[in-house]
Amino acid sequence: MPLDEMKEGYFAGIFPYLVTPLDDKGRLKESVLADLVDHLIRKGVHGLTPLGSTGEGAYLDWPTKKRAVEVVVKAAGGRVPVVAGVNNLTTHAAALEASETEHIGVDGILVVLPTYFPIVDEQVVAHFRAVARAVSCPVTLYTNPKFAMWDFTVDTLKQLADESNIGYLKDASGNIGKLMSIITALGGRFKIFSASAHVPLFVFMLGGVGWMAGPACLIPEQSIALYEAARQKRWEEAVALQKKLWPLNVAFQRYSLAACVKAGLEMQGFSVGFPLPPQRHLDREGRKVVQKILEDIGAL
Amino acid sequence: MPLDEMKEGYFAGIFPYLVTPLDDKGRLKESVLADLVDHLIRKGVHGLTPLGSTGEGAYLDWPTKKRAVEVVVKAAGGRVPVVAGVNNLTTHAAALEASETEHIGVDGILVVLPTYFPIVDEQVVAHFRAVARAVSCPVTLYTNPKFAMWDFTVDTLKQLADESNIGYLKDASGNIGKLMSIITALGGRFKIFSASAHVPLFVFMLGGVGWMAGPACLIPEQSIALYEAARQKRWEEAVALQKKLWPLNVAFQRYSLAACVKAGLEMQGFSVGFPLPPQRHLDREGRKVVQKILEDIGAL
Amino acid sequence: MPLDEMKEGYFAGIFPYLVTPLDDKGRLKESVLADLVDHLIRKGVHGLTPLGSTGEGAYLDWPTKKRAVEVVVKAAGGRVPVVAGVNNLTTHAAALEASETEHIGVDGILVVLPTYFPIVDEQVVAHFRAVARAVSCPVTLYTNPKFAMWDFTVDTLKQLADESNIGYLKDASGNIGKLMSIITALGGRFKIFSASAHVPLFVFMLGGVGWMAGPACLIPEQSIALYEAARQKRWEEAVALQKKLWPLNVAFQRYSLAACVKAGLEMQGFSVGFPLPPQRHLDREGRKVVQKILEDIGAL
Amino acid sequence: MPLDEMKEGYFAGIFPYLVTPLDDKGRLKESVLADLVDHLIRKGVHGLTPLGSTGEGAYLDWPTKKRAVEVVVKAAGGRVPVVAGVNNLTTHAAALEASETEHIGVDGILVVLPTYFPIVDEQVVAHFRAVARAVSCPVTLYTNPKFAMWDFTVDTLKQLADESNIGYLKDASGNIGKLMSIITALGGRFKIFSASAHVPLFVFMLGGVGWMAGPACLIPEQSIALYEAARQKRWEEAVALQKKLWPLNVAFQRYSLAACVKAGLEMQGFSVGFPLPPQRHLDREGRKVVQKILEDIGAL
Repeated sequence: MPLDEMKEGYFAGIFPYLVTPLDDKGRLKESVLADLVDHLIRKGVHGLTPLGSTGEGAYLDWPTKKRAVEVVVKAAGGRVPVVAGVNNLTTHAAALEASETEHIGVDGILVVLPTYFPIVDEQVVAHFRAVARAVSCPVTLYTNPKFAMWDFTVDTLKQLADESNIGYLKDASGNIGKLMSIITALGGRFKIFSASAHVPLFVFMLGGVGWMAGPACLIPEQSIALYEAARQKRWEEAVALQKKLWPLNVAFQRYSLAACVKAGLEMQGFSVGFPLPPQRHLDREGRKVVQKILEDIGAL
Repeated sequence: MPLDEMKEGYFAGIFPYLVTPLDDKGRLKESVLADLVDHLIRKGVHGLTPLGSTGEGAYLDWPTKKRAVEVVVKAAGGRVPVVAGVNNLTTHAAALEASETEHIGVDGILVVLPTYFPIVDEQVVAHFRAVARAVSCPVTLYTNPKFAMWDFTVDTLKQLADESNIGYLKDASGNIGKLMSIITALGGRFKIFSASAHVPLFVFMLGGVGWMAGPACLIPEQSIALYEAARQKRWEEAVALQKKLWPLNVAFQRYSLAACVKAGLEMQGFSVGFPLPPQRHLDREGRKVVQKILEDIGAL
Repeated sequence: MPLDEMKEGYFAGIFPYLVTPLDDKGRLKESVLADLVDHLIRKGVHGLTPLGSTGEGAYLDWPTKKRAVEVVVKAAGGRVPVVAGVNNLTTHAAALEASETEHIGVDGILVVLPTYFPIVDEQVVAHFRAVARAVSCPVTLYTNPKFAMWDFTVDTLKQLADESNIGYLKDASGNIGKLMSIITALGGRFKIFSASAHVPLFVFMLGGVGWMAGPACLIPEQSIALYEAARQKRWEEAVALQKKLWPLNVAFQRYSLAACVKAGLEMQGFSVGFPLPPQRHLDREGRKVVQKILEDIGAL
Repeated sequence: MPLDEMKEGYFAGIFPYLVTPLDDKGRLKESVLADLVDHLIRKGVHGLTPLGSTGEGAYLDWPTKKRAVEVVVKAAGGRVPVVAGVNNLTTHAAALEASETEHIGVDGILVVLPTYFPIVDEQVVAHFRAVARAVSCPVTLYTNPKFAMWDFTVDTLKQLADESNIGYLKDASGNIGKLMSIITALGGRFKIFSASAHVPLFVFMLGGVGWMAGPACLIPEQSIALYEAARQKRWEEAVALQKKLWPLNVAFQRYSLAACVKAGLEMQGFSVGFPLPPQRHLDREGRKVVQKILEDIGAL
């Protein structure tokens, strides 16, 4: 990522979705989180995203979320940008949390909108608009139609293009055709981050600026190598790398996201604990699968 | 409902799912809630359920939920049992909230388990077991596979039958065949409450003890008449009543639940306000539909 | 069923969906089919439906289908009405097959519309209208949204009400609420037959005139008893019977339909063979389940 | 495509899924089909696939299908390979049709397995195995989980790898991650053709050998240009081309497949008629959309 882009607050590259290390009472393990942050920055990641889906942002109370962001911001120490997740069911609470998160000192926020009842496009637009207006930092839109009862359409994104600080879209639909339709219709208005449900390489080929996802916690160097190969248009090398890394995405999708990444990090020596119940731990068979994949990739 | 059953804590009959009246800043309108409670009790309902799905239990913070339960318990004044909803994504928070809710003085709790990531049967059992053990009052299990990524199976219910204070099941799947399979397999171990996604009359025919749902806020007398006709085995009369009431269930399913009941209550003179954004208000066309239905039923 | 209704061509009661007995080369076993027809009439069924879903109507070529209808009409010998399935992907072929089926001497047809590509309401209406106009006998509409990419709406049914010889609807959605909406909106315009995806008793309570489905091949007497209890408004007895019979519906839904009924008939001594590949035979575990259910019901 | 590969019967490149031109009585318009074949070959396509999904293979009777294949084989005159669709619900009929199709003189077959009842993996394997054994020409496996109630898994494909004449897979799931998993697990055992539900370029990047789909009837030159750019590893040019062509894929998915391609061909002067009812014609708004897209692509 060129320095001048960084200075302009242009996010690009590999942004691991950080897990939130918790003890068996659900309390934040602050030093483990700080160590993980330092480890990933030393490995070369371009940014950090606490409190995404993998970070159990939907499951944590505000004091824990606030403390997690504080720890990440402090441990990052300005070395890479921090884009923190904001995850609330109501617009009012989301806007408030976004504002408080910004004041902690993050470089951007990622807005996740979970649902209980289904919602329609008009409400989707109103929600993201209100949250974007609650902050002055860059906003990343997030959508995952597998976990929430709505999805962005080309039309809702066009409406949100009015909000000047909404700069990024992380689409976790896994539907690369839909992403191509969005890019075709909206040009470069929103910079696109790949999710793990996508094949990141293909998002890069379409002009995507990076990959924000949990697996990058486990394979930061390999993720960076893939990103660099794509950035430098060494496409055949990138395809080979992508094929090699793909099994981790498959495992990550198949097993519960936080469980998979937390189990892998434990194997790598980070005592991040388990996901909050009633989320499932990775069971013995799942751990075997993840261990084998990490060994094959050279990450264990 | 016979008095001796009441004394034993046996819940049966019509339990309106109370809406949570809120002003445009999201603050509880306490006197409106108290008035609604008094109105419904005078109309003859057999119990009250604040903070169900219709009560926006998934959207409210704990202070608001706590205050809503306090207002309902106080306004009910022991005239009918209060079964309050407990709605959390994590087992730890749900158990804590269940315990605090019990201490407010409710007669029972209804446990709603929303999800972000999908969960499996083992975790479902563990969650409900832990919450049931956090209280000594009767527990009602709730499932709605349209709004959460799990559903009870006959097998998970068999496991939960071990917990002696789990006495009730409210199934909102709308699948009457599934309910018959549960009843066939588990006999009378769990008393069944119908949801609005079901045809309540048929749940009564299978031995269901009542109807817990939002529409009963709007048509308490008619709901009671249906329940009484079924209880007294006046089946043809019950069928005719059920057919007359059915359009309200259809509207309730079609439009956002809280929006539909809140709009209807406003028509009846209760200033309950709107559902919390990004939930949708009932639009003009929806209000016309609901108004026409309420007029046809004789509830406006 | 009163005789005068029969004379008017009013279909009501238990209409087993006949399996199509086939040898291992896929050839019709005519004498087995004739024996089954005679057996079911002696047991008291009110009509017969060859070539429904269970009859593998979607899988057979026209010569086999034609011969099957001829055998059933001849074996029935006018003792009960025969309502034969017509099952085609194109309107032209369906209309032609309907006409030829009528000329064999059936009393009515049941129109099944399978799909490859999804279709919209306007085409659904046009298809059933065209097929109805190709015959002069009574037509039964059939819908099963699990097996085809369309479903009747209240609005499409209202349009089809124009065709005077469309007299019946067999809805296999299993959604009793939808059926209540149809009955509420259309009154008695279409007489309703229950499918096995429904709880037949509840369809009877809503005014349904009978049950057309595969399980009645296996439990004709019990099905008739349920129908008679409902017709005579002995509702509590009907509920008890329905609960007893329900496990067969569950098995029928869970296992492939034709496979389940064919396996059960083999147990009862009818050498009906297997469903056409690639349909699955009922495996050992499935046969055990079906055998146990039939024993419990008293049908083995 | 190198000539030596052609000689070995190695299919690769752009294979338009031919529509089946029909008059308003459903009769084959033979000369229109022959003209279309000649036109596409002159435009440079690498092969032809009559009777795929777009060719309405699921809707036509055997005499029409047989005649369509004869016309295509004769019109092609050996200039490009013909891979004809075989589309049946039963294994017996599919094997018979496959054999007869081979005797017409095709170079390969594409096996489509529609369903009425859902089927399981074991039956899927048995079906494709039996059909493959009924011919000696190369077989292309086809799967489209949107239109049939099964899908290939890595495991079923591994089993089918035993059949030496099964050489190709056309996956129409649109799930590029699944395709990557298949390629990772099975290496080059099956050569992959893209469907229009995929982004063809990305299938090429993963090693896919071509694109078999309806839109290539409308934009043969542009499809070939995309294929050649990918084959020659001019990736940036390929991405730009792919983005330009993508809107046609979107329209093709959105509208009924045969309707969309037939309407476009009519605009280009081929009198192919309409899809068979109850399939929908492309309506006025749809025709406008398709016309605009073809104009933008330079195909009108």
